[in-house]
Amino acid sequence: MKKITILIHCKDRPNIVATVTNFIANKKGNIVYLDQHVDNQQDIFFMRLESEFTNDEFSTDEFKACFKSDLADTLDMKWRIYASDKKPKMALFVSKYDHCLYDILGRYNSGELNLEIAFIVSNHPDLKHIADRFDIPFHHIPVTKDTKNEAEDKQLALLKAHDIDFIILARYMQIVSSKLISVYPNKIINIHHSFLPAFVGAKPYHSAYKRGVKIIGATSHYVTEALDAGPIIDQDVARVTHAYTVKDLIAKGRDLEKIVLANAIKLHSERKVMVFNNKTVVFS
Amino acid sequence: MKKITILIHCKDRPNIVATVTNFIANKKGNIVYLDQHVDNQQDIFFMRLESEFTNDEFSTDEFKACFKSDLADTLDMKWRIYASDKKPKMALFVSKYDHCLYDILGRYNSGELNLEIAFIVSNHPDLKHIADRFDIPFHHIPVTKDTKNEAEDKQLALLKAHDIDFIILARYMQIVSSKLISVYPNKIINIHHSFLPAFVGAKPYHSAYKRGVKIIGATSHYVTEALDAGPIIDQDVARVTHAYTVKDLIAKGRDLEKIVLANAIKLHSERKVMVFNNKTVVFS
Amino acid sequence: MKKITILIHCKDRPNIVATVTNFIANKKGNIVYLDQHVDNQQDIFFMRLESEFTNDEFSTDEFKACFKSDLADTLDMKWRIYASDKKPKMALFVSKYDHCLYDILGRYNSGELNLEIAFIVSNHPDLKHIADRFDIPFHHIPVTKDTKNEAEDKQLALLKAHDIDFIILARYMQIVSSKLISVYPNKIINIHHSFLPAFVGAKPYHSAYKRGVKIIGATSHYVTEALDAGPIIDQDVARVTHAYTVKDLIAKGRDLEKIVLANAIKLHSERKVMVFNNKTVVFS
Amino acid sequence: MKKITILIHCKDRPNIVATVTNFIANKKGNIVYLDQHVDNQQDIFFMRLESEFTNDEFSTDEFKACFKSDLADTLDMKWRIYASDKKPKMALFVSKYDHCLYDILGRYNSGELNLEIAFIVSNHPDLKHIADRFDIPFHHIPVTKDTKNEAEDKQLALLKAHDIDFIILARYMQIVSSKLISVYPNKIINIHHSFLPAFVGAKPYHSAYKRGVKIIGATSHYVTEALDAGPIIDQDVARVTHAYTVKDLIAKGRDLEKIVLANAIKLHSERKVMVFNNKTVVFS
Repeated sequence: MKKITILIHCKDRPNIVATVTNFIANKKGNIVYLDQHVDNQQDIFFMRLESEFTNDEFSTDEFKACFKSDLADTLDMKWRIYASDKKPKMALFVSKYDHCLYDILGRYNSGELNLEIAFIVSNHPDLKHIADRFDIPFHHIPVTKDTKNEAEDKQLALLKAHDIDFIILARYMQIVSSKLISVYPNKIINIHHSFLPAFVGAKPYHSAYKRGVKIIGATSHYVTEALDAGPIIDQDVARVTHAYTVKDLIAKGRDLEKIVLANAIKLHSERKVMVFNNKTVVFS
Repeated sequence: MKKITILIHCKDRPNIVATVTNFIANKKGNIVYLDQHVDNQQDIFFMRLESEFTNDEFSTDEFKACFKSDLADTLDMKWRIYASDKKPKMALFVSKYDHCLYDILGRYNSGELNLEIAFIVSNHPDLKHIADRFDIPFHHIPVTKDTKNEAEDKQLALLKAHDIDFIILARYMQIVSSKLISVYPNKIINIHHSFLPAFVGAKPYHSAYKRGVKIIGATSHYVTEALDAGPIIDQDVARVTHAYTVKDLIAKGRDLEKIVLANAIKLHSERKVMVFNNKTVVFS
Repeated sequence: MKKITILIHCKDRPNIVATVTNFIANKKGNIVYLDQHVDNQQDIFFMRLESEFTNDEFSTDEFKACFKSDLADTLDMKWRIYASDKKPKMALFVSKYDHCLYDILGRYNSGELNLEIAFIVSNHPDLKHIADRFDIPFHHIPVTKDTKNEAEDKQLALLKAHDIDFIILARYMQIVSSKLISVYPNKIINIHHSFLPAFVGAKPYHSAYKRGVKIIGATSHYVTEALDAGPIIDQDVARVTHAYTVKDLIAKGRDLEKIVLANAIKLHSERKVMVFNNKTVVFS
Repeated sequence: MKKITILIHCKDRPNIVATVTNFIANKKGNIVYLDQHVDNQQDIFFMRLESEFTNDEFSTDEFKACFKSDLADTLDMKWRIYASDKKPKMALFVSKYDHCLYDILGRYNSGELNLEIAFIVSNHPDLKHIADRFDIPFHHIPVTKDTKNEAEDKQLALLKAHDIDFIILARYMQIVSSKLISVYPNKIINIHHSFLPAFVGAKPYHSAYKRGVKIIGATSHYVTEALDAGPIIDQDVARVTHAYTVKDLIAKGRDLEKIVLANAIKLHSERKVMVFNNKTVVFS
């Protein structure tokens, strides 16, 4: 049995659901998941569909070709089709903070993540010992103002060599340049340690302390050229009080960061996120 | 333009989505909402669909007849179809606690609820002044052990006379008998002041205090013959500490009760809840 | 028996707790609540204390005089002392949105609030029927650009005539001028319909929609001259999805606004909030 | 500088705070944290206090002796005093589930926990590779019905040999006997994968699925002889829907278990929890 996931968006019009589900039925697929969303303001139709095929001769490539010619081209759809037997390959970018890295690697070893972690890149050598503990290749690529360009070339070469599908910035602490972003559009996920759009930029916990907020948050989002302004994937929050020092906020925030980043990794790798006009549609 | 909502459940089989959406397309309907759920354990398919019809000659009754003969009977579906231009009629049962009543009537007057409150019934006269403030008819039907049977007959007569669609027990404090339940199956909604199934029965806040829980909750559910064991519609919780007295728990719980009951009223009246095997499917 | 509440803040130094609790003991008071907070960054000590006095001859005024001369002046304390038998008087400012007003008046009638609502002021006559339902005096004071100054004079006259302790802006939709703020410093509470500091200013739900946040919030804060930048009293949040329209966000946000404003009213009227350097200390 | 933490409970009476704070002042201590709680129903006073001593000659043992003779014996107090320079020693009991273990060891290596993990005990060898990765001694002590008694003797010998202060059951899956409990009263912490008291005993996620709850939870509690009925330390919850299978509930619950257990470890090791009459007082 083969299972595929289809993501579609196009201008809204009548009968799209019927058209697509008929197409699947004709190909002898059994739909096991279907959710759709209509953005009435922009007049855009979004759909996520999972279908199983029990016929032995089913070929994902043939299906894709057929889907394109018979359906997508006619209806002017943007679409992606994934076979469930191919795990996405992920690269981790880290710096000196280790809590998100421990969390991701723990989940990975527990079998919680349906993906492959190809390697870890860092601008500092500090976390190499963790990569070693978990038997993940670690590449130390230092970044300075002068070497940033070269460093990114090295990163890109590594990413290409390993055929990486998406990148996780697990508190990477460096601004990623447009060179990398253009190669991985909506495929680089960052964790920002505040409830965006509050406290954009550096030291959000210090800003939260100064403002005296009663709730702090964390936000995972796709990286775009505008700082901390990319499409939001997930957010979570926690209550704090006047008694929390900046250090306490940082400690409390670590748990948020871990969970919000892990959720984003799961949602993205399970192909549940679509991006349109700097916002996400996140299917359940 | 007419808008209808269709709720379906049946044994799962291939191509149901395609079959139903084709049917709608043939009737010249435009699907504006579709969500489905497959309960794999019980092998049951659930679907909620909203469709708009711009043809002037559209008749809900004809559509229903056609849906039944051409689709539902063939596929052995359980189904309900509602026209959006008909507001459901609701009756409120209260006793002496007033917070849920104030909340519901405030929301009603604010235009937040898409339904009609026909009347309020109570076994005590205490809250009549609130009904008067909001210009809702109030019926005082006392209930004692000896008169319970007669009292329910009076309630039923009132419900029938006003063609009531569903009943809200807004902290009614009386156990509703099977006579009423059988006339309104999955149409009587109760608010229980605990996080069910913890603390079934009377005085749940006292039990929560005694057990020293760190979170309290409230649960709205359909009333069945088993006490506090009917299908759960919504739940919510709030953090408490050792410093909360029983009185504090009760005060904190009032906000939960109000919100969880209001959510249930909205979900039910907007036809977003399906019941199967003592559990709910709640569409978004 | 008399019960008083004492709020203190001063430069931190050793033995303040011992000094204050000794003072109470000498006056034959029994401490029933004590909580303290030290802001180490600013080196400020905060304390809230409730004490009961069973001696018949106890006089709050004498106690205050004694507290000032023997304790507060020596230790250079800022302090406030309240007798629990005197309910604070509150004025409500509203405009056209009614949900917070219904909520507050429902709670008030339920006996949930330990305060007196003296009157409602509005720049529009729309909500007078609600004030009438709940038998609260309603004053329609129109505000236009040209009459804003006069209007505030009328408001101030009313506030003074009724000896108002604090003001609640229940979605008042007007910017309060420094004239009013200076008479009621940290005594005017506003509800802002976003998770501050995100989405300051007008139409925060529209901004939240545009940014595609996954959580929305509401914030109650003291009004200062800087727009939406005063000390935060309480905040709460709720999850939303891509499927929420602006209208849905507004509907969802109403519940947050109601609860966060009600919490602020309770905390302020129970003298649990202290303000220092544009932040609050909120005692439990 | 020395810092100590004092935990006290005794029958409530006037002037306890004054008496204790005077005692500290006389010893030249500076109180940096004080919180108290009066359980009015049981008439019990609880207090947690942190004090710093800058005098070089300060001795914790002398202070304890003095506290006992001058204060605690007179006022019939139960008390504990801890010097902050001595880290508590913790033992971890695990079985086959690895997520809590990864989480705790990640936090430990990140420097998040102010304690020493002496060793890991398991009735199965499966998780030894994790202990090895983190360089923590691992002891495989198999437990069968017949060998349970001997196994516990081995555990006790290990615990004694390492001078263990408290034990964490990180999904240990075995019922701990009264022998161990009596040696470590209120010092063995279990994580139960439900929102207690709902779903006591085995397979709570299956029960939650069957009941159709809309929120699931996790509970950390001290182990007593009554199954899953010991004093609750912390609880947390997460929303779920009808679409969650048992497997989904288990996956979602893992995050709750990790956080709720980690919180309990922090609260206990920082001496913020007091137990009285099967309930906890948890200081902030």
